[in-house]
Amino acid sequence: MSRRAWIIGTGLIGGSIGLALRQRGWLVSGTDMNAEEAERALDKGALDSIGPDPEAEVVFVAVPASSVVSVAAEALRTAPQAVVSDVAGVKSRIVTGVAALEPGSDAARRFVGGHPMAGSEKDGVAGADGSLFQGRAWVLTPTGSTDPEAFARLHGVVTSLGARVIATSPERHDSLVALVSHVPHLLAATLMGLAGEEAEDSAELLPLAAGGFRDMTRVAAGSPDFWPDICAENSPAIVSVLTELSHRLDALARLVGGGDREALLDLLRRARAARSSLPALPTPPETVTEIRVPVQDRPGALAEVTTLASQLSVNIADVEIAHSPEGGGGVLVMLVDGRDAARFSDSLAARGYPCQVRGL
Amino acid sequence: MSRRAWIIGTGLIGGSIGLALRQRGWLVSGTDMNAEEAERALDKGALDSIGPDPEAEVVFVAVPASSVVSVAAEALRTAPQAVVSDVAGVKSRIVTGVAALEPGSDAARRFVGGHPMAGSEKDGVAGADGSLFQGRAWVLTPTGSTDPEAFARLHGVVTSLGARVIATSPERHDSLVALVSHVPHLLAATLMGLAGEEAEDSAELLPLAAGGFRDMTRVAAGSPDFWPDICAENSPAIVSVLTELSHRLDALARLVGGGDREALLDLLRRARAARSSLPALPTPPETVTEIRVPVQDRPGALAEVTTLASQLSVNIADVEIAHSPEGGGGVLVMLVDGRDAARFSDSLAARGYPCQVRGL
Repeated sequence: MSRRAWIIGTGLIGGSIGLALRQRGWLVSGTDMNAEEAERALDKGALDSIGPDPEAEVVFVAVPASSVVSVAAEALRTAPQAVVSDVAGVKSRIVTGVAALEPGSDAARRFVGGHPMAGSEKDGVAGADGSLFQGRAWVLTPTGSTDPEAFARLHGVVTSLGARVIATSPERHDSLVALVSHVPHLLAATLMGLAGEEAEDSAELLPLAAGGFRDMTRVAAGSPDFWPDICAENSPAIVSVLTELSHRLDALARLVGGGDREALLDLLRRARAARSSLPALPTPPETVTEIRVPVQDRPGALAEVTTLASQLSVNIADVEIAHSPEGGGGVLVMLVDGRDAARFSDSLAARGYPCQVRGL
Repeated sequence: MSRRAWIIGTGLIGGSIGLALRQRGWLVSGTDMNAEEAERALDKGALDSIGPDPEAEVVFVAVPASSVVSVAAEALRTAPQAVVSDVAGVKSRIVTGVAALEPGSDAARRFVGGHPMAGSEKDGVAGADGSLFQGRAWVLTPTGSTDPEAFARLHGVVTSLGARVIATSPERHDSLVALVSHVPHLLAATLMGLAGEEAEDSAELLPLAAGGFRDMTRVAAGSPDFWPDICAENSPAIVSVLTELSHRLDALARLVGGGDREALLDLLRRARAARSSLPALPTPPETVTEIRVPVQDRPGALAEVTTLASQLSVNIADVEIAHSPEGGGGVLVMLVDGRDAARFSDSLAARGYPCQVRGL
């Protein structure tokens, strides 16, 4: 029997998930507000059929951010066994919104916010690609009320698509993407805007804009249409990073104006070191180690433990919940790279999670 | 008889000029503070011989910015017929410094500041490449006291290497490169530094840094060593652009915080339009038009006319000085793309330079 998924919103991301799941033997149904987009997804092989699937074990809501809460609510009702996730670029409002639907209800606990860090120049299902997530980060945002089994299932599905799960809180996700995605985009637009105004007076400016400038402003060539929504959804985090950057540029102007060579070199050297440590594709583990963490009667343990792993840059290859025969919670069983095991288990113990570590 | 050039400083840029000139039949001699670097340039085929050439008609001073003035002074004395140019990234101090050597002397008038907008990841003559300047901008900074014949000769040589001459004043060059090169570099370092600090607390940040962030911070991976010199040489222009950017980020933070969607969209749209108008390689002219500008008794006419062309984005394919038989100055003869001729000649006339336009 094939595992079953339902994709709501069969555009670029939804279509890519469909293709990737079908390549792995899943039975995938899909729906889209735009019936033609769903037809195109079917034609492209991203779906087995069009329509909702009440028996799906996982639902991906790949619709615009502003519709996620209502669509996810309907998915949780329609597919009562499913873990439901989304793919929007800002998470706090959505996760809070779903949790507020019926506070404490079992349904809301089956929702886990998600954000695959992958995209394409092409729009819609035409750009869909089953390998889109290979080697990419995919953020999941479990909270204290997330159902551990739903999370573990979603973790397994996302990992099977070739992505690396980064678990973090919705709020932290939003401030991190403000820093590495939203503000860089706004910064590129600001720099390009300034140069564009200058070039109106002196066209000789633009031929001087060499590779570095072109690299820095490339994202400003993208469509501006969805940025006002992103800025509105993530306004506090974006404002905070913009303000911090503005302060740093003022301080830098004082360094340059004051001829402080050493401070300048120090700043550039630290930036270079940080740039060099941007991760390439993670190397495959040499050995796999199992870490078992008893989490009986500790609500929120799942979110805390998986978020800690991501903070420590420890990749969890797989996670499951082993129920103790006596009931009352269970044991979180995680597979991690053997090189990370000691560091991870030490940090867990320091946070009050004594655990068993066993090489496999 | 081959034309003769002398290259002082036979590293990446000097070596590339040597290779390009020799490919075009020139006889190239070269000197370098580091005798081994000159030997390597000879081995690589960038030079015909090692040593100064008092009979050179053009000298390229490709040494670090801090040494250019003294080296250029010596070159002007040693090669009394040559036009002497440099390749440093900041121009005002150098051009002023050479002019101040013996104010008004004929020697200083044969110096024209230069800045080829080309580089390589590789250092030294090992990275030298005769096609390095093909399709690139090469700034020349004539002033009111520049010898027009020396400029015309240098213009011809630089153009023959495949570069497009951008003529502008030393001061304007420095503020333009602050905007499209120096500040973008500092900005990339600032952004990367901020992200690096954040990542010390939460390593999950770095896997989230996708293509756009990597593009924007790529230049921060370069060697920091020569930036304190650049910042010192170009401090006023850099401080001014940094301060302007900081103001704009503050204003942007207010837009985002205030939810002003329309203003935000407007900013992003203008940036996108400016980014789209970054020039690709210039298209070859369909027809060539000759523009003749009488410049008798108008000191500084050459700098004014060629700088105006660059401001208007008009490429001068060739420039020469035709002396009137009666003496007293002469006629500036320029070849330009026929599509640019009317625009250029109208602007010249508006600035008090009536000219003749003749299709060729």
